[in-house]
Amino acid sequence: MHGDTLTHDLFAEIVKIPLIDPHSHIDPHRPTAKSLDDLLGYHYYTELAHSAGLPKTALAAEVPARNRVAAILGHMDRFDNTAQYAWFIDIARTYLGFQGNRVNAGDAEFLFEAAERTFAQPNWEEQVLRQSNIEKVFLTNDFDDPLTGFDTNRYVPCLRTDDLVFHLQKQAVRDRLARATGIEIGAAADLRRALASLFSHFVSHGAKACAISLPPNFSPAAVSDNDLSAALGDAAGSELLSRGVFWLLAECCQEFKLPFDLMAGVNRRVYCEGVFQGQDLFDQRTSLIQYAELFNAFPQVPFCISVLSSAQNQELASYSWIFPNVVTSGHWWYSNIPVYIENDLRGRLQAVPKTKQIGYYSDMYKLEFGLPKYNMYRRILAKVLANDFVRSGMTDEAGAVALARQILRDNIRRIFDV
Amino acid sequence: MHGDTLTHDLFAEIVKIPLIDPHSHIDPHRPTAKSLDDLLGYHYYTELAHSAGLPKTALAAEVPARNRVAAILGHMDRFDNTAQYAWFIDIARTYLGFQGNRVNAGDAEFLFEAAERTFAQPNWEEQVLRQSNIEKVFLTNDFDDPLTGFDTNRYVPCLRTDDLVFHLQKQAVRDRLARATGIEIGAAADLRRALASLFSHFVSHGAKACAISLPPNFSPAAVSDNDLSAALGDAAGSELLSRGVFWLLAECCQEFKLPFDLMAGVNRRVYCEGVFQGQDLFDQRTSLIQYAELFNAFPQVPFCISVLSSAQNQELASYSWIFPNVVTSGHWWYSNIPVYIENDLRGRLQAVPKTKQIGYYSDMYKLEFGLPKYNMYRRILAKVLANDFVRSGMTDEAGAVALARQILRDNIRRIFDV
Amino acid sequence: MHGDTLTHDLFAEIVKIPLIDPHSHIDPHRPTAKSLDDLLGYHYYTELAHSAGLPKTALAAEVPARNRVAAILGHMDRFDNTAQYAWFIDIARTYLGFQGNRVNAGDAEFLFEAAERTFAQPNWEEQVLRQSNIEKVFLTNDFDDPLTGFDTNRYVPCLRTDDLVFHLQKQAVRDRLARATGIEIGAAADLRRALASLFSHFVSHGAKACAISLPPNFSPAAVSDNDLSAALGDAAGSELLSRGVFWLLAECCQEFKLPFDLMAGVNRRVYCEGVFQGQDLFDQRTSLIQYAELFNAFPQVPFCISVLSSAQNQELASYSWIFPNVVTSGHWWYSNIPVYIENDLRGRLQAVPKTKQIGYYSDMYKLEFGLPKYNMYRRILAKVLANDFVRSGMTDEAGAVALARQILRDNIRRIFDV
Repeated sequence: MHGDTLTHDLFAEIVKIPLIDPHSHIDPHRPTAKSLDDLLGYHYYTELAHSAGLPKTALAAEVPARNRVAAILGHMDRFDNTAQYAWFIDIARTYLGFQGNRVNAGDAEFLFEAAERTFAQPNWEEQVLRQSNIEKVFLTNDFDDPLTGFDTNRYVPCLRTDDLVFHLQKQAVRDRLARATGIEIGAAADLRRALASLFSHFVSHGAKACAISLPPNFSPAAVSDNDLSAALGDAAGSELLSRGVFWLLAECCQEFKLPFDLMAGVNRRVYCEGVFQGQDLFDQRTSLIQYAELFNAFPQVPFCISVLSSAQNQELASYSWIFPNVVTSGHWWYSNIPVYIENDLRGRLQAVPKTKQIGYYSDMYKLEFGLPKYNMYRRILAKVLANDFVRSGMTDEAGAVALARQILRDNIRRIFDV
Repeated sequence: MHGDTLTHDLFAEIVKIPLIDPHSHIDPHRPTAKSLDDLLGYHYYTELAHSAGLPKTALAAEVPARNRVAAILGHMDRFDNTAQYAWFIDIARTYLGFQGNRVNAGDAEFLFEAAERTFAQPNWEEQVLRQSNIEKVFLTNDFDDPLTGFDTNRYVPCLRTDDLVFHLQKQAVRDRLARATGIEIGAAADLRRALASLFSHFVSHGAKACAISLPPNFSPAAVSDNDLSAALGDAAGSELLSRGVFWLLAECCQEFKLPFDLMAGVNRRVYCEGVFQGQDLFDQRTSLIQYAELFNAFPQVPFCISVLSSAQNQELASYSWIFPNVVTSGHWWYSNIPVYIENDLRGRLQAVPKTKQIGYYSDMYKLEFGLPKYNMYRRILAKVLANDFVRSGMTDEAGAVALARQILRDNIRRIFDV
Repeated sequence: MHGDTLTHDLFAEIVKIPLIDPHSHIDPHRPTAKSLDDLLGYHYYTELAHSAGLPKTALAAEVPARNRVAAILGHMDRFDNTAQYAWFIDIARTYLGFQGNRVNAGDAEFLFEAAERTFAQPNWEEQVLRQSNIEKVFLTNDFDDPLTGFDTNRYVPCLRTDDLVFHLQKQAVRDRLARATGIEIGAAADLRRALASLFSHFVSHGAKACAISLPPNFSPAAVSDNDLSAALGDAAGSELLSRGVFWLLAECCQEFKLPFDLMAGVNRRVYCEGVFQGQDLFDQRTSLIQYAELFNAFPQVPFCISVLSSAQNQELASYSWIFPNVVTSGHWWYSNIPVYIENDLRGRLQAVPKTKQIGYYSDMYKLEFGLPKYNMYRRILAKVLANDFVRSGMTDEAGAVALARQILRDNIRRIFDV
């Protein structure tokens, strides 16, 4: 906090805002960690440990959980400078009774036992949500998820469509689609019906968004039904098929009134030998102008855009300032680092209507990460509000807190209708 | 000001520097606003209100001015976080006797009346210029502007050439050119004579610069007279024609000793249904290396370069550090936001000879915007000078103020010969 | 230092860390300056003076050194705002007894005489190294350098390979290669043997790295021996040849266990009439994804990457966080400016394992520049450690100094095995 009273006071008010987390990978049937392995298995830790020298074999599924955990902890002093390390320390101190500022292999036993004990408490899920001040969490559901057996009011379904857009040439995906909808895909018309069926299923189960991650060179465009039908039958037509399916999804978003979350810019499997979920990287040579046709074609669909670099964030701030249907969304993945969050947040707060900004989402796999990730963001938000808004005279403290509430809660409620 | 005395003191000195504003869209026959509608009709307000939900129809020409104004004010609480909102508050408080920090639809009546009364004062233009401490303002003149009926010492003509470079295939533009010069364009030689005639006209009426805005993919190159003649007669040859006309303009700049303002990076009509002047956006995938051939070919022409992103600003700082004829110019459009100004300004001040920097221009359509826009810049400049120059020991306060004067006034006088 | 005690204290501790400078252009036979001309002949000064108006003729070899120096000093007041000017002032005050804060042509005589006197001291080299706290300095050696006649423990050889990769079509380069290795290059197999011979020579003389600078569009890929042999005989095959030679060098790095320094992004001779070494510029449209195949193919080779822009630095931080063999390296050339160093350093320190970061190198041609360049970096490092690490509670002062030591010394010792 830099001993700055104003920032401190703003942070204290901001943490009181009940959060709606508009993007996570929470499994609603198993939302919290069961062990330290569930925490340190988060790809941020496995990939940083691997990047710092830990062989992938030490992380394999057949390695006992205690050994896997000890291996990662034993490498943590190689990346104890990182933001991700700070999240873990926050968790260890808040939830596991850890007292120090540094962890190493010697702490494995204590932390492992503390985690077993703590996470086994019957009301652990409630405790975590209360302590994080998180009210609702959006999910990332496969298109063939039955969406049953959990409270969709707390865990809001969200239709994830990467498989449909990028892997529909695979028979396995078509089989899943056929099982989920009862429709075998022969031509474009079948696809339309199948997607409508998915949207219908999702909306009727409380889904509030459609989402996808997109490679840097993706450029959406309408595809004629004839071309789409042809692409469905042609293994070489996958690029056209991707564009066509994507466009149909946007049409469904319009028809079913769902916002479309676009996470733009990631190439998959760049580091082929990387750990699970630790293989993807971006290419800065990408532009939101690739989406201009889309934004023009669907003025009623809110597109909530996440980007991976500060350079593209400057584009995003400009596109959201001009296009009524472009919303800035969170700080994603490689951009979810304090120096980039601060810069990107300042650009958005100074240039984009405040009603069109989704401040943050956790992207978490386990609820325990909500607290440290949102805390990182809230600290930066408090600092930016203090310097750029209160000290500059733009507003007073109450106005700054209201602005925080707008981007952390009110906009999410309005845009996603929750 | 963050309660920082040094920054405060520097700002107080910097505001005393009489400004020469090297780029605006002022109409010298009607330089000030006549009504609140003239202020809120500035595209920044119409596009932000539209982006935040105001239908374009509410801004149509046939809507009564009071209603248009009320509609925008009624949406301002959706973008009262933006830099542009802060400009308006600065105007309302400085010029219109507004007392608060927040405006809304309820203030429409008061502000409208105050504007009518204030702007009708006979010496209003003088008042605004004095209060803004602006001595001269560069214009943006169509190539067929007669340049008569105003004081070209105060309102410095500048030949704007977008129509010539990008629309010369249109008969209407050729007709305008023929009327302005008496020359019908058949072949390259006619074009040379016509352009020379325009430059002659402009220079004899006190013009001090040639200017153009350019799309991100533009890459100037010499075109042979044969190719140029062919392109003039070929509707499909517009890209070649653009390159050829642009090159001839650079030759004229050399011959007539005019600096060439290049505003690089904007795509037109990206958001097709946007409000007037609120449809353009950039593509970050552009590089100043596209201009290397130009910079090499015309060593005597100062190229004053504006860019739209911080990533390209880093290129600009490097190109200006290496090329004697490349000058950094202002903070343009989507870059004219405090966080980007600060970052871009720091890069330039730390890397580019101080004699090659044009600090700021207003880009304004009405003189009333000079004050808030320059104030925004001067506050940032004061902060950067305080931290990077005085506190670092690079110079003392007097040296910092001299540096401000260099980039706000002296360089503009020297480079544009005013 | 901004009157900040913590930053001051950290700086005071950081300067005590003995430096290993992992990249310079020092001539080990003549490591220090002999005259003021040796200092001001550094391309930063000639190019800034030229950019600010000094004709290239004033810098020609036939101009007497005193006149050349006076010409540059006479133009310094045009770029006394730059970081490079600050380096010179630091040198003048630390080494030459200069008392002021501003130099101009009037100081030429004093500085010239002081330099002659000072640099002629018999133990000058030792004095400079001691005062800079530099222990070892890596060199940039031509591939046919005999590497004899100097202390390779202090001046660590490094095989520079630009000529081999980009100029092997030139007979002169092939002749040099034949002379250095005794091998005439006919086919791919000859090239392999010749490169192995060079690596063998370098390693046996204490070389600790292979290095190259690469243009923005370079994209390494394996080339078959057949294609490589064909390219060797085909003047039009230079692009393929470059790729092929580069790949063989990476193979040699693997075999001879040398890290490969990649300095990515510079185009040569962009400003054709620029001063010596002042003609090169970058193109921001480049991505590290161009190196993905390379990073995947050589997991055992540490690739120490330097980039030219903050946008690509964000890529670098992400690639180094994911790829175990990608190391962030220094702040190169156009990025070696405080505002960019600060931003880039923060990104790396917050996102990349601390063991994979090479903090800084001098890139210097004369030892006297070690002090001011490292001082610039150490001041920024102290500020970043104070704000992002100590004040945020990530670590204490001792931890911050240990982090500085890690990136300034320990990593370099480990990665380069010195």
